[in-house]
Amino acid sequence: MAGKVVVLGIDPGSIITGFGVVETDGSSSHVIAWGSVRTSSRAPLSDRLAAIYKAVVEQVSSHRPDVIAVENVFQSKNVRSALKLGHARGVILLAAAQSGAEIHEYAPREVKMSVVGIGSASKAQVASMVRRLLEVGDAELGEDESDALGVALCYAHRMRSSVLEGSGR
Amino acid sequence: MAGKVVVLGIDPGSIITGFGVVETDGSSSHVIAWGSVRTSSRAPLSDRLAAIYKAVVEQVSSHRPDVIAVENVFQSKNVRSALKLGHARGVILLAAAQSGAEIHEYAPREVKMSVVGIGSASKAQVASMVRRLLEVGDAELGEDESDALGVALCYAHRMRSSVLEGSGR
Repeated sequence: MAGKVVVLGIDPGSIITGFGVVETDGSSSHVIAWGSVRTSSRAPLSDRLAAIYKAVVEQVSSHRPDVIAVENVFQSKNVRSALKLGHARGVILLAAAQSGAEIHEYAPREVKMSVVGIGSASKAQVASMVRRLLEVGDAELGEDESDALGVALCYAHRMRSSVLEGSGR
Repeated sequence: MAGKVVVLGIDPGSIITGFGVVETDGSSSHVIAWGSVRTSSRAPLSDRLAAIYKAVVEQVSSHRPDVIAVENVFQSKNVRSALKLGHARGVILLAAAQSGAEIHEYAPREVKMSVVGIGSASKAQVASMVRRLLEVGDAELGEDESDALGVALCYAHRMRSSVLEGSGR
């Protein structure tokens, strides 16, 4: 794959959803922006979902990503929290589908493996590697934001693998 | 509450989502339309969510409901099916929030209690009562469609209760 690609990484949550935007050509990546949206658990669910959806639409319109990478989930503490997280992921995937970007989903384990090299890495380890790889320096970086940048990097690293495989032929 | 109200009832599902539109003044209700949207489990999740969202938006633009009543869920077979159902409910509640209609959510037990009078009623019993109450006759009515009409009727019956309480003062 030639040229630069803008990747919007998203770490979905029913309370906080993190965003991270990375530009990559497969061999090197740099950070463009990051942020998060927090919704009040006291607000009606439909309003919270509308806020999460709006935040994704705004990220798309600001950064025009070629790729949207979303953290996937197969496990949850219980059915109740799975339902909550599912609602948030639903509106995020909808906004992604409407954007026309290529959509990829990665399990938390894949993201940790790709960023830290250990599938069971802690959130602090992910944050530390994201800081180093993207040269974020001392800038403030929330947990959900570093997770989102990690998801974007996961795509970048896979792109690199396919570039290397391609050039090896 | 005076005047007639158009209620769009929705029975969300990750495969089939049912719709039922009822007009009610609290004391009598009649059916306007019903239908359902089915998505292929082989299609990408984001495309399926986009199809469900689009179907709700179309219902809203066709019938201009004053109220959208959505079946709520707190239980599920397992975490995986809860996540799936959560995704569908997320985009449905988003479309509902964007419509500006009043949103109500009812648990399956509340709907059964309101329509059949028994909280543990079967789907067949709900369908049979919905047919009778709304005089649907022999028209074809899928399970998800009769459930959706049941959700709309649940709102109508509560409206009736509040009308009766109001007049009793």
